Amino acid sequence: MSLPRPLALALLSACAAVAFAAEPPPRPRTMQEILDASTPAHWRTPDPENTLYLELDAGRVVIELAPDFAPAHVANIRALAKAGYWNGLSINRVQDNFVVQWGDPAEEAVTRKPLGAAQAKLPAEFTRGSEGLPFHRLPDADGWAPEVGFSHGFPAARDPATKTAWLAHCYGMVGAGRDVAADSSNGSELYVVIGQSPRQLDRNITVVGRVIHGIERLSALPRGTGPLGFYEKPEQRVPIRAIRLASEVPEAERSRLELLRTDTPLFDELVEARRNRRDDWYKVPAGHIDLCNVPLPAREAPAR
Amino acid sequence: MSLPRPLALALLSACAAVAFAAEPPPRPRTMQEILDASTPAHWRTPDPENTLYLELDAGRVVIELAPDFAPAHVANIRALAKAGYWNGLSINRVQDNFVVQWGDPAEEAVTRKPLGAAQAKLPAEFTRGSEGLPFHRLPDADGWAPEVGFSHGFPAARDPATKTAWLAHCYGMVGAGRDVAADSSNGSELYVVIGQSPRQLDRNITVVGRVIHGIERLSALPRGTGPLGFYEKPEQRVPIRAIRLASEVPEAERSRLELLRTDTPLFDELVEARRNRRDDWYKVPAGHIDLCNVPLPAREAPAR
Repeated sequence: MSLPRPLALALLSACAAVAFAAEPPPRPRTMQEILDASTPAHWRTPDPENTLYLELDAGRVVIELAPDFAPAHVANIRALAKAGYWNGLSINRVQDNFVVQWGDPAEEAVTRKPLGAAQAKLPAEFTRGSEGLPFHRLPDADGWAPEVGFSHGFPAARDPATKTAWLAHCYGMVGAGRDVAADSSNGSELYVVIGQSPRQLDRNITVVGRVIHGIERLSALPRGTGPLGFYEKPEQRVPIRAIRLASEVPEAERSRLELLRTDTPLFDELVEARRNRRDDWYKVPAGHIDLCNVPLPAREAPAR
Repeated sequence: MSLPRPLALALLSACAAVAFAAEPPPRPRTMQEILDASTPAHWRTPDPENTLYLELDAGRVVIELAPDFAPAHVANIRALAKAGYWNGLSINRVQDNFVVQWGDPAEEAVTRKPLGAAQAKLPAEFTRGSEGLPFHRLPDADGWAPEVGFSHGFPAARDPATKTAWLAHCYGMVGAGRDVAADSSNGSELYVVIGQSPRQLDRNITVVGRVIHGIERLSALPRGTGPLGFYEKPEQRVPIRAIRLASEVPEAERSRLELLRTDTPLFDELVEARRNRRDDWYKVPAGHIDLCNVPLPAREAPAR
């Protein structure tokens, strides 16, 4: 093991960029080279009306909402955020390899925080019609859906037979907890996927968005030791300082994030660079990628 | 939302068991009902010679080694454990949605801890011959391998064309970090998967086992803020008290764990219960499961 350690260990990484001399035949570009070659047109800025800031003592988690898939839930979440509904509530559940979940921990309806102007029940938004929906298909299939790809920057699935589409439960996706009844969610109780993608939840629950920054502030939280990963003692719960819409936050306090577009040839090249890793470390390119293994790069917006 | 909260929230869980009255047609059993109906013959006890205890300040992490897939690496790891190689070393890298990694953080070869009687380089054990290898196939396929299933209790893949088999990089799998050269690993530098299964690593690195208990002591660690999730300051590293073979630990101090066998009709029933969830919460059974979504239950051995 003669390589300096940081370099050596770097080569295990999913993100390793390898420098090499220009030689024929030219190698496909690595993910880092592709990102370095991107132009401003390859990036997009999330709409502040669709961006949530979850403020914890440890810092900010940024969520992009998906009104194209869950318009009623997103409208309710906006109303709840504007009313400061979650401020002072807590993260109550952290189940390893599954989800982090927050909301009102009160068990009795009478002691629960009022929802104010928000709806208490919403229609299920598990799927939507696929007609007219932009859908940038991944070359690979999986067993969970007839077609998978990206729509409005989110990992998504589509069924040509039923002409429906839905968001996929990949790492970082945000959903609205519900009871047994399909129409029992309202967006006040939200969860984030922090493990192997639980795709069996697809089409069974309303997915409302995706964490685009700061997920490690959720995924590294202590696991709850109660059933289903609930914290057993109230003092174990993680306080939520606030959840706010970015549009309600003064501009100077907003996170300046950009997301790589998922509907460009450059993104296709990035996907191919991940389907078949061509750096010196990889001996057997996979020739495949699962939807939830495709990286969705975010960056701080460059200074203007 | 009239249900009491713990019940209501329980229904989001991947493990929710739902009580129901006996009515025709009988419903398929839930995972919990299947486990409750298991007999001692459905369980196995890991061999203490193949069981590693990683002792942290936070408690014990138990790893089952896979000598059927990586005999040379497992022999080296046994030698390193017996010599106390890792005692006093540290976890140096925690990369979100990827791996936790430990070993000697020293960058210079001359300052690194000697490996003692262990080998410094081992042949790659990325794959092995599939002939004669027990392989309990999953009904579903994925895009990463021609066939997937379980072998000796581990998630594995197989290629009939090349007559090879290999362990799959699911959540909790343990591998041996290496440099660029395929034969540059020796098992002293180990990593554990703590995110979406990075199956692109399959056949590119030697997988040596799986965490069977205590993974939350790794997955909830603070993420490293350096490149690739390395801790930037030495004091951020997580000390390893010891890594020992269970066979070297007095019986009274051993973890008494049993693992559900993966080669029985009962296990097949469990897989089917997860391929198609039939409780009241699920509205659309997936009709599919990915290899890395199949639960591999462990339990404390019942008192004799």
